[in-house]
Amino acid sequence: MTGRRVALVAGGLAPFGVRAATWSDLVQEAGRAAFKETRNFSGADVDSLFVGAAQPERWAFQSHVAPLAAELLGIRPWKIIQRTELACASGQAAIRSAYAAIAAGLSDVAVACGVEKMNIPSMAEATTSMANVLDRPWDGVHGATAPPFFAMVAQRHMMEHGTTAEQMTDVSVKNHRFANANPNAQFHAKVFSKEKLLGSPMISPPLRLGDCSSMTDGAGAVLLVAEEKARQYTDTPIWIAGSAQHSDFHNLSNMPNLTDWVGLRRAGQELYRSGRVGPQDIDVAEVHDCFTISEIIEYEALGFCPPGAGGKFVAEGQSDLGGKVVVNPRGGLLGCGHPLGATGIAQAVEIFQQLQGSAPPARQAPGAEVGLVHNLSGSANVHSLMLYRREN
Amino acid sequence: MTGRRVALVAGGLAPFGVRAATWSDLVQEAGRAAFKETRNFSGADVDSLFVGAAQPERWAFQSHVAPLAAELLGIRPWKIIQRTELACASGQAAIRSAYAAIAAGLSDVAVACGVEKMNIPSMAEATTSMANVLDRPWDGVHGATAPPFFAMVAQRHMMEHGTTAEQMTDVSVKNHRFANANPNAQFHAKVFSKEKLLGSPMISPPLRLGDCSSMTDGAGAVLLVAEEKARQYTDTPIWIAGSAQHSDFHNLSNMPNLTDWVGLRRAGQELYRSGRVGPQDIDVAEVHDCFTISEIIEYEALGFCPPGAGGKFVAEGQSDLGGKVVVNPRGGLLGCGHPLGATGIAQAVEIFQQLQGSAPPARQAPGAEVGLVHNLSGSANVHSLMLYRREN
Repeated sequence: MTGRRVALVAGGLAPFGVRAATWSDLVQEAGRAAFKETRNFSGADVDSLFVGAAQPERWAFQSHVAPLAAELLGIRPWKIIQRTELACASGQAAIRSAYAAIAAGLSDVAVACGVEKMNIPSMAEATTSMANVLDRPWDGVHGATAPPFFAMVAQRHMMEHGTTAEQMTDVSVKNHRFANANPNAQFHAKVFSKEKLLGSPMISPPLRLGDCSSMTDGAGAVLLVAEEKARQYTDTPIWIAGSAQHSDFHNLSNMPNLTDWVGLRRAGQELYRSGRVGPQDIDVAEVHDCFTISEIIEYEALGFCPPGAGGKFVAEGQSDLGGKVVVNPRGGLLGCGHPLGATGIAQAVEIFQQLQGSAPPARQAPGAEVGLVHNLSGSANVHSLMLYRREN
Repeated sequence: MTGRRVALVAGGLAPFGVRAATWSDLVQEAGRAAFKETRNFSGADVDSLFVGAAQPERWAFQSHVAPLAAELLGIRPWKIIQRTELACASGQAAIRSAYAAIAAGLSDVAVACGVEKMNIPSMAEATTSMANVLDRPWDGVHGATAPPFFAMVAQRHMMEHGTTAEQMTDVSVKNHRFANANPNAQFHAKVFSKEKLLGSPMISPPLRLGDCSSMTDGAGAVLLVAEEKARQYTDTPIWIAGSAQHSDFHNLSNMPNLTDWVGLRRAGQELYRSGRVGPQDIDVAEVHDCFTISEIIEYEALGFCPPGAGGKFVAEGQSDLGGKVVVNPRGGLLGCGHPLGATGIAQAVEIFQQLQGSAPPARQAPGAEVGLVHNLSGSANVHSLMLYRREN
């Protein structure tokens, strides 16, 4: 990095779920939630807007969504405005773009907003569109969509490392318990008990419904500013301390290994190098648990535990409060649902609150100073990472 | 700007037109064209990729297009990868994102690629999707799509300023003549003579077919690098000297004035301020002539001529070779066609060649040192500008 330092100073969400709200309603709810607690804030301060959205063209029949969101948020950007898309990582892409713009001196005060409206009248259209995320002529049309792909990954991980269905359910139980303490989450442990998760319908063996995140409506917004403006908006800015991405194949037949996610290992190494930290320094992590097996492999690739030991790691409570690193205290994609463009923003909002120490006690990682956010997209072929830090 | 300087070092295109090629074919053609002339280039150098694409979800049934493009281009980005979307300005948004990333020190060597496949089996689907660019529930469903909107603008400009249909055709004649010297253009003056343009079918009065750009297939790619790497790839890098955008309404009923494009005036002022130039310093400009009236109003808003004098400006040849500023020597959107995501990249490739002095003589602005690129998107509610400069 040669540019300026960048801080997160506010964040807010529209509650996740099957919402009667429109795409536009969700943006407005998220904006209100983000702006209302921000000291001295005026919409006129915002010079740039980055909107993370995966498929509004198909799910809201709306393109050119960045200026639409600007109008809904009551801002009139005069430096940069654009939408960012990276499928399931679209929200994080918006934050990274705002970070680059501010660090480069091309923006001083930016909003990164993420939104997705996935529950639409035709759920056939909604699920078919998900196959667009893959190389459609090569993979999508042959049924290599998300659940069967991650089921293959899970089977292979079970064979290679002895990972069990019970260990996968441990991920889901932990994340639904955390979601219980998150009023913005779609699913709560009251409804999704361990028994229910273990006995839930089989989707694609070995993955049951309880192993899968859902198609959800939701939105989020964060305010990012240059260092010299940070104290204007809050006494406790949270600093962006690193960024990394890795993309190393797209067509599934080019994937080198189902269970060793090389791209995530490399992105993690780059993130730790740039942030001058190691896996042992991460206090709290929001990782992409689109399926339970994903979170298990992410522990390994991010270096929280040795390769193959992810199942044991969660079973021993090492990713829970009191463990080595608190993973997905927000409730994860499993507990919160996964509105594609909103997820990355909601993860950042969680890390913001965790590092400020303002999360509800049932999910607060005590004394957390360093936090990580991870998103994968496609067939785990792209990995996106951000590092955040509190400074005392 | 606080960050590093950024240079354009290579660019290339897939020919624009009604192509039998797929979305993926177009990306590969553009990449080959961009990379083949670049000295010492290896795909392994590229750490970041930004893909400008407006609606691949609807027109190619393909989302998550950035990693798909990476695989097709033979690159494996390990710093940043994302798609940028801003409707008709999606390609320029990709360049701005690459610029910010490099300036911030988050990338050293980036590809900005733009692509659109608009000629699809169902042209009803293709044209209906264009209405997504507006606020659909408020404007799109009421027919306020591009031709009727720009027709209203033209009628108002004619009434206020005495602009004539002949002056509008002058824009089209100039741009089609330039396109004659551009083998990548869709339409050429041989086919679209002045007589044919003047007598072409009425689309939305006063706009005839000859006043309208078309839905086209095409792609382009440029290579952007940090200052310290520029001479590795070329002896004549072209420097990014400024950037500005402005978004001030979305819903048409919030548009303050049909013919005074305040957003473009403000973006121009910001661009000239940041680049330490004035309109009189611009040697060559690629502006967004989606309709002939657009180019006329853009002369005015960018300060090339006084307000209301745009029709006279083109009629007098002031925007042609030998005039005050050479506008759209590539052939513009009118001559080249308008594949949404590719247009902004193709404009940058043209300015790159113009400032290098390597364009064909029939369209080369002699001795050009400073070039400007403009895109509008939506109902002229968002304006995007980049400034380029040759240094001797």
